[in-house]
Amino acid sequence: METDRRRMAPQVGIVMSCRSEWETMRAASEILTDFDISHEQCVLAPYAVERILKQISDFEAQGFRILIVSGAAYLPGLLAAHTTLPVLGVPIPSRSFRGLDSLVAMVQMPRGLPVGTLAIGEAGAANAALFAVSILALTDRTIRERLQAFRERQTRSVLDDRLP
Amino acid sequence: METDRRRMAPQVGIVMSCRSEWETMRAASEILTDFDISHEQCVLAPYAVERILKQISDFEAQGFRILIVSGAAYLPGLLAAHTTLPVLGVPIPSRSFRGLDSLVAMVQMPRGLPVGTLAIGEAGAANAALFAVSILALTDRTIRERLQAFRERQTRSVLDDRLP
Amino acid sequence: METDRRRMAPQVGIVMSCRSEWETMRAASEILTDFDISHEQCVLAPYAVERILKQISDFEAQGFRILIVSGAAYLPGLLAAHTTLPVLGVPIPSRSFRGLDSLVAMVQMPRGLPVGTLAIGEAGAANAALFAVSILALTDRTIRERLQAFRERQTRSVLDDRLP
Amino acid sequence: METDRRRMAPQVGIVMSCRSEWETMRAASEILTDFDISHEQCVLAPYAVERILKQISDFEAQGFRILIVSGAAYLPGLLAAHTTLPVLGVPIPSRSFRGLDSLVAMVQMPRGLPVGTLAIGEAGAANAALFAVSILALTDRTIRERLQAFRERQTRSVLDDRLP
Amino acid sequence: METDRRRMAPQVGIVMSCRSEWETMRAASEILTDFDISHEQCVLAPYAVERILKQISDFEAQGFRILIVSGAAYLPGLLAAHTTLPVLGVPIPSRSFRGLDSLVAMVQMPRGLPVGTLAIGEAGAANAALFAVSILALTDRTIRERLQAFRERQTRSVLDDRLP
Amino acid sequence: METDRRRMAPQVGIVMSCRSEWETMRAASEILTDFDISHEQCVLAPYAVERILKQISDFEAQGFRILIVSGAAYLPGLLAAHTTLPVLGVPIPSRSFRGLDSLVAMVQMPRGLPVGTLAIGEAGAANAALFAVSILALTDRTIRERLQAFRERQTRSVLDDRLP
Amino acid sequence: METDRRRMAPQVGIVMSCRSEWETMRAASEILTDFDISHEQCVLAPYAVERILKQISDFEAQGFRILIVSGAAYLPGLLAAHTTLPVLGVPIPSRSFRGLDSLVAMVQMPRGLPVGTLAIGEAGAANAALFAVSILALTDRTIRERLQAFRERQTRSVLDDRLP
Amino acid sequence: METDRRRMAPQVGIVMSCRSEWETMRAASEILTDFDISHEQCVLAPYAVERILKQISDFEAQGFRILIVSGAAYLPGLLAAHTTLPVLGVPIPSRSFRGLDSLVAMVQMPRGLPVGTLAIGEAGAANAALFAVSILALTDRTIRERLQAFRERQTRSVLDDRLP
Repeated sequence: METDRRRMAPQVGIVMSCRSEWETMRAASEILTDFDISHEQCVLAPYAVERILKQISDFEAQGFRILIVSGAAYLPGLLAAHTTLPVLGVPIPSRSFRGLDSLVAMVQMPRGLPVGTLAIGEAGAANAALFAVSILALTDRTIRERLQAFRERQTRSVLDDRLP
Repeated sequence: METDRRRMAPQVGIVMSCRSEWETMRAASEILTDFDISHEQCVLAPYAVERILKQISDFEAQGFRILIVSGAAYLPGLLAAHTTLPVLGVPIPSRSFRGLDSLVAMVQMPRGLPVGTLAIGEAGAANAALFAVSILALTDRTIRERLQAFRERQTRSVLDDRLP
Repeated sequence: METDRRRMAPQVGIVMSCRSEWETMRAASEILTDFDISHEQCVLAPYAVERILKQISDFEAQGFRILIVSGAAYLPGLLAAHTTLPVLGVPIPSRSFRGLDSLVAMVQMPRGLPVGTLAIGEAGAANAALFAVSILALTDRTIRERLQAFRERQTRSVLDDRLP
Repeated sequence: METDRRRMAPQVGIVMSCRSEWETMRAASEILTDFDISHEQCVLAPYAVERILKQISDFEAQGFRILIVSGAAYLPGLLAAHTTLPVLGVPIPSRSFRGLDSLVAMVQMPRGLPVGTLAIGEAGAANAALFAVSILALTDRTIRERLQAFRERQTRSVLDDRLP
Repeated sequence: METDRRRMAPQVGIVMSCRSEWETMRAASEILTDFDISHEQCVLAPYAVERILKQISDFEAQGFRILIVSGAAYLPGLLAAHTTLPVLGVPIPSRSFRGLDSLVAMVQMPRGLPVGTLAIGEAGAANAALFAVSILALTDRTIRERLQAFRERQTRSVLDDRLP
Repeated sequence: METDRRRMAPQVGIVMSCRSEWETMRAASEILTDFDISHEQCVLAPYAVERILKQISDFEAQGFRILIVSGAAYLPGLLAAHTTLPVLGVPIPSRSFRGLDSLVAMVQMPRGLPVGTLAIGEAGAANAALFAVSILALTDRTIRERLQAFRERQTRSVLDDRLP
Repeated sequence: METDRRRMAPQVGIVMSCRSEWETMRAASEILTDFDISHEQCVLAPYAVERILKQISDFEAQGFRILIVSGAAYLPGLLAAHTTLPVLGVPIPSRSFRGLDSLVAMVQMPRGLPVGTLAIGEAGAANAALFAVSILALTDRTIRERLQAFRERQTRSVLDDRLP
Repeated sequence: METDRRRMAPQVGIVMSCRSEWETMRAASEILTDFDISHEQCVLAPYAVERILKQISDFEAQGFRILIVSGAAYLPGLLAAHTTLPVLGVPIPSRSFRGLDSLVAMVQMPRGLPVGTLAIGEAGAANAALFAVSILALTDRTIRERLQAFRERQTRSVLDDRLP
């Protein structure tokens, strides 16, 4: 019952700390769309603490199941602290350290604040979506089949990759 | 139905690339035990490729739902490539770079190989387990309630932390 | 008038994300005590978001003027976002990267979230306190005189440092 | 009385070690202008030690209250050693290490030489200005109100940031 | 006898984890061509584990003697685990860390998994080929003479490099 | 014929730039001894250029086939420049950067100076020896069989590594 | 007497390991020309060991007094080992690590091999020349006066650097 | 004439920014003593700017010829700016980054402020002294002969370093 009701609601929320991160996070949205998984994205600028907390609660109330968060600021930690949903993190390539600062700030969370962190930038955004798919596939046969098909396509696509 | 059958089987596999990693990964096992989530650990030394592949298939066949993998070698990538289960990674503090090499090798997987990476060492092992709990809580009311209770205890435990 | 009322209240709040940081932050407290500046310290564990927000509001209501925050987690960002008081940050030496991760996460705040960051560890804790002193000295002649005397002592203390 | 006299004088000095840093530090000047805070900028090339010392003394004599210093060379340390005013530092993106060298040289001052360091580059310049504003807001109601208004605008500006 | 039969077969296999690495690895192929050493290149995308294992076995069966592998993913480790042929590695310049992540992941293999690693990018690709040449030169007089001639040319080519 | 004559002479030279590196490089010697491969070690301190060059020529004249070189100084580059034998490098853990400086100096050789670099420290020393074994195994059936046996033992040794 | 004879000969040798480094090292040559100090530059490609050793001996025989060496390879170490002249080093910005590898390889020489290292790239090349000037100024009054004049010009040049 | 007068005065000044650096810098003093070169050491704590400037002028007036400076703070830059004597720098191993911060702050001086930087810690201190010796050897036959003898001893000392 529960599973059914939930599938109606968006399942994955993509949370950015700044509009420009959409350039990177679009890759996550595209993968989710390919898998026909409903999702929503929003920008939660880091100076609006109350709004961030309210949005997280709304996500939970609306039945979202997984949050993907990008950015360099304190947003991932706050999300991990304020929800019991799985939180996946995508570090954004920064100008100064090419994302190493975002990566380290995100992945090195202290005990009790888990953020499953993926690679910096677009590859990480795509992988965050695929990770979300693998979670949803645990209890949804359709998604599981789509994931297996995707994997087989991925594998086949390289079978004749002999260079000229 | 499916959910029920699965709860009988171990739900989380902890895979290490070397026996000495148990010192770190025990923290994951302890958290899972606290939450009464059945799990199993094994060492899959990186020179035994066939055995690794067989073990991954066994995990899937036995109904494991989440894999937590530690180590510095190529094990996390191979797992991510060979299963559709969610793979969480815990970098192990190395002698040379205090784990930065393991972290970067694990988190910077290319597109198509998602490994949700947690912090280096014990904090990361504990958080990997908590992340696994948050996944299982999505479809298991008992675990969800335990996770909420854990969070409240965590919060309360610091409420009177005023220093002398 | 305002200044007087304020001097009654504690002027500096030292906020830690974990009890063990006191070992480092004690250096800040000692300097403030030397300058006879009232201050208070507390631990705001990062999983207790509401409590953190309430404590920040309390600091403001009680007339605190400067916050010194330590830690590796998202606490410094949240403070900078939720108060208009000056926020000074002290990165804590971590096990994995000797504090480089805490430093980078703290100092690389995005535009709009200023955290004035000092050196990693004890030297940084002492300097955060001295920085707070220099702010209070701007409008308090007594503190200014104490700061000048401190500086002269510091200088004199090395005047005969010729090695044997 | 004192406060009033001081408000007439420039309140913030922006000190650069090289003309090209103005490109970065202009962001600080713009914020200060927005808050209607009088300020002045100058270049103190690092080979002119006497001139640097004289300029710092002049800043103090003229009633400047906060110094913001940029650059990679030894300038921030010298300022911190030679004044009791609060010194804020903005690391400049270098060609070789994208500013990591400037950052580390600036933030890792030894005990007794506090430089409150902000992020590398433009974001850091803006945040240094905002930090200066938060110091001045402690004793100036007008600036405090402007800061609160600025914060609210910042927050509101993202309230309808839902992506298409 | 054995040596003769083997010289008929391709002697060096160049294995990439992604088509775009050819841009870098072409430098290896060109050197091998210059030395008239038969070689073959293929792309073994990291999601196709079975295909990778099969290809490695094929290389051995066909009498390949040395494998040169590029990439950032887990491919080098898997090769080192699955073959007794010498495996040379060329880290590919990544977008995020300019190849430092690939380098560290490749060179820091645990005991039992030797990957002889060369420099990041094109220089490394050329040197991997030269290293392979030096191995083959151990038992092939013709190649040894070509290598000595190459070295002498290299040396002579700089003899009149006096700048204007 | 050639192969036979050569097997009489030591086959692998282990070259250190400082006596203290023996602590690390002993691991290479032990592996070579296990495989019954004759080898010799010497210290070539970096200030004795002529002696280094003479020793390299002696190695070639005596029929050595592979050189393993350790150290942080310029020794690996000089060897790679002065011999056509394959040169394997083992970075030594330094006090300042835990070997990262040695690693980068060794692996980032310019085009034309190939040094096949292994991991920092003991694991790298062992792997350098195993790499040398894999080269010798190409043309020596006995060594090849020993290497295969070693690999199978390595794999079997982990087969029942189920943790208690 | 000795001093006089020597002033006739070129005093500074600029040694590069690759023609493309001239782009960076030209800055050193220009400064030396400004100070009217005779100097010569040459490229000593790292595969021509004998030629390198001969050139170093020639430099000494011809009365050169200071060597400035650039590059990423083993050249600086070899020079420091083979001459008793002061050797100044200029790390060249590499493609992979922006010169950090060259810097670390050059500056972290072991005890007994001193290379006085300057900054990466053009600033370092100019400073190497200025350092050479400061050595020659120790025993040459004319150069000393020129250096003092240069310093005063440098200082004056920034005296009216007040920004618009 | 000038040379003679100067040889009476101490020739090398060792300047530390903190008493604890003597532990490292003693290695420089020992080498200078071995070469019978008069030298003096002092601690110039970084908060005593006027005293630092006066000491530098005194060094020049007393005929010191080379300054060796250690430390992490702004001292090396200030020396390079305030004297025309050659300034050699020895980075001190810091607690946080094992000296990488000191190294980078020292070596990456901007154009016009040359500090010839040696390795971090004791090896660097010894090499700074040897570099100073090589400068003094340019115009002092006795020192030159001692340096050549030292080099020969260094070389001979490793001639029978064949390991057991």
